[in-house]
Amino acid sequence: MARIDFPEEVKALIAGLRNLPGVGPRSAERMAVFLIQNPQALSEELSRVLSECARIVKACPSCGFFMGKNECAVCSEDGRERELICVVEQPTDVLPIERSGIYRGLYHCLGGRLSPLDDIRPEDLRIGELVRRVRQNPRVEVILATSSDVEGEATANYLMEVLSPLGCQVTRLAQGLPAGGGLEFADELTLSRAFQGRR
Amino acid sequence: MARIDFPEEVKALIAGLRNLPGVGPRSAERMAVFLIQNPQALSEELSRVLSECARIVKACPSCGFFMGKNECAVCSEDGRERELICVVEQPTDVLPIERSGIYRGLYHCLGGRLSPLDDIRPEDLRIGELVRRVRQNPRVEVILATSSDVEGEATANYLMEVLSPLGCQVTRLAQGLPAGGGLEFADELTLSRAFQGRR
Repeated sequence: MARIDFPEEVKALIAGLRNLPGVGPRSAERMAVFLIQNPQALSEELSRVLSECARIVKACPSCGFFMGKNECAVCSEDGRERELICVVEQPTDVLPIERSGIYRGLYHCLGGRLSPLDDIRPEDLRIGELVRRVRQNPRVEVILATSSDVEGEATANYLMEVLSPLGCQVTRLAQGLPAGGGLEFADELTLSRAFQGRR
Repeated sequence: MARIDFPEEVKALIAGLRNLPGVGPRSAERMAVFLIQNPQALSEELSRVLSECARIVKACPSCGFFMGKNECAVCSEDGRERELICVVEQPTDVLPIERSGIYRGLYHCLGGRLSPLDDIRPEDLRIGELVRRVRQNPRVEVILATSSDVEGEATANYLMEVLSPLGCQVTRLAQGLPAGGGLEFADELTLSRAFQGRR
């Protein structure tokens, strides 16, 4: 007797969902059950936005931020300081910086960070584009805003080496105690960096 | 100046992904970034299987298991014991039972379990269909295989009450120590049930 299994369509859906980051076999099954048991419109809508996103959304050829039908919302905005380029790992890192309101320059989204373990090397990131932008305008200040963990630091160090011969100014976001955080919650590395960077 | 945000298509994708169970704002963003940065074909394929699943896959009108273009793989299979109905919460619960090879009867997928906190009441589950099946064949044995947590137990108790006046035999899966599990890993409830059910 044949082994009972889900219909092909359900198996294909589970396989498709498993491709997503952070989705294992159990959560993919749970998502598929959820989609099948909810009104068809929910799946159809998700299918529509997925396909629309795939067709329309591109990375801005200059800064790498997401770009829909119109030109890049950041690069095309009037009044930005064009001598400042803040380098972040992902387009999603742009929004918190914008929300803070502290920065009014341009961005450069790398599309990830160096990670030998995941086989992500310099040529997998948008580093060539960054070098090109700096060459076009060597008076810029490049602010490295990659994360402050090991891989983010390695990426920042690598960029520092690549950019310093170009004559531009390269800075790194300050590290130290987070605002409102008491000393009792600070880990040793944060504390040691807060001491080193004291002013 | 307008606040920078993602293009509409990306926001729609993030909102769509957030509907999925277990997906919060951060994971939805991470998934969207992943989909946009990967080759377009990945999103298009996921979009295709989603839409295909929504169009084709239905619950079997009798047992509630997933059904593609063909008839229900379980109900239509020759050689199954048609006097046995195993009641499970979800279609996904059928596969592990089938894999065990111990059971060769029919199923009844409720589509969930009673949960006052999530506002899931008896009329939200496929209980009416179960009663109908039992009425059509009162000689069946109904095996309650809902989970052994509080909500699964409550669902089993409710079904016991609903089914007992119909004259069918109603049983519940045994509870006790899991195979290969030592006593040191058993929680108190499992242990007390293992003692109560000793034979």
